[in-house]
Amino acid sequence: DVGLRRAEIKQGIRMVTLCKDQQGKCGLRVRGVNKGVFVAFVHVNSPAALAGLRFGDQILEINNQLVAGWDTDKVMKFIKNAAPEKISMAVRDRPFERTLTMQKDSVGHIGFVFNNGKINSIVKDSSAARNGILTEHQLIEVNGQNVVGLKDSETRDIFAAAPRTVTVTIMPSFIYEHIVKCMGSSLVKKLMDHSIPDI
Amino acid sequence: DVGLRRAEIKQGIRMVTLCKDQQGKCGLRVRGVNKGVFVAFVHVNSPAALAGLRFGDQILEINNQLVAGWDTDKVMKFIKNAAPEKISMAVRDRPFERTLTMQKDSVGHIGFVFNNGKINSIVKDSSAARNGILTEHQLIEVNGQNVVGLKDSETRDIFAAAPRTVTVTIMPSFIYEHIVKCMGSSLVKKLMDHSIPDI
Repeated sequence: DVGLRRAEIKQGIRMVTLCKDQQGKCGLRVRGVNKGVFVAFVHVNSPAALAGLRFGDQILEINNQLVAGWDTDKVMKFIKNAAPEKISMAVRDRPFERTLTMQKDSVGHIGFVFNNGKINSIVKDSSAARNGILTEHQLIEVNGQNVVGLKDSETRDIFAAAPRTVTVTIMPSFIYEHIVKCMGSSLVKKLMDHSIPDI
Repeated sequence: DVGLRRAEIKQGIRMVTLCKDQQGKCGLRVRGVNKGVFVAFVHVNSPAALAGLRFGDQILEINNQLVAGWDTDKVMKFIKNAAPEKISMAVRDRPFERTLTMQKDSVGHIGFVFNNGKINSIVKDSSAARNGILTEHQLIEVNGQNVVGLKDSETRDIFAAAPRTVTVTIMPSFIYEHIVKCMGSSLVKKLMDHSIPDI
């Protein structure tokens, strides 16, 4: 299943290499959570997006420097001061997230209700109930495609267009809210990378 | 690595079958979290322990009955009323947990400090920092062996006896605290299954 493969959260640590764009930007914002550094924003079509960084990825090292315990400002300053040609990062794949694969029923429903991307109820005897989806969790991806910052109607369109088997990626809401809370503006949200990832 | 294999969190849903013991008990306690039903306690040497249920497992079905949205009492009553010979459960492997594999340094340290099993600081440039361990997380297992309810000194003994490569299983503390909060007594904690799991 293509959606499942696009959504898969991989074990282990991957190396990512990117260079800055002509404005000297990576298109990345981070947020410190529990002494870890997490990707909070990936600008559409930016070096960060092209390098495959995703919302929720944990950045462990930048240019061989461990960043555990660094706050947002320290990380952003370090990236700003890095040479533009090559920035390397060691990244753990979305540690706060997990995936659930469900099947649409005969009318195309998988069986949960969400509001502002937050799951707030589960339909009895639905595929979502059978698979153990949870409330107080935020929808992060649908078949691997990021939906953070989309309107619910846009996310619903993505569900409607998806094949019968749908993989959703979720994160506990209290962590999600912590990661996004300093990025308020709808402008930022509109510029998030919502492209369909490569496999 | 044996510890890693014992600790591995598996994708997908497994079926578990157990029967009650001579006192009519399964040795299991559950707790509802976000409309899901989670294993909160597994009694040492009980049918639940022998069936391989673990702290943090999500129970999706019992005897083909979906339990999404059920509270603790409803689940415990349902199990109590079930026929003793065969109880089947569909279980998702510890969805709130994740594993991190680290290496001891030359003096046997992996690089984090914990108190009552809760990780509260990370040693700079340690294996724990390199692998992205997080504070505000609870130690649930060491090389797949449950440490919930153990004294810190007992958990430290398990670390000391472990080989150089150590896999720890962690869960965000706010979820852990919610799962264990109604099980107060140290008696209950002392009866938790802390055996080394089969591979």
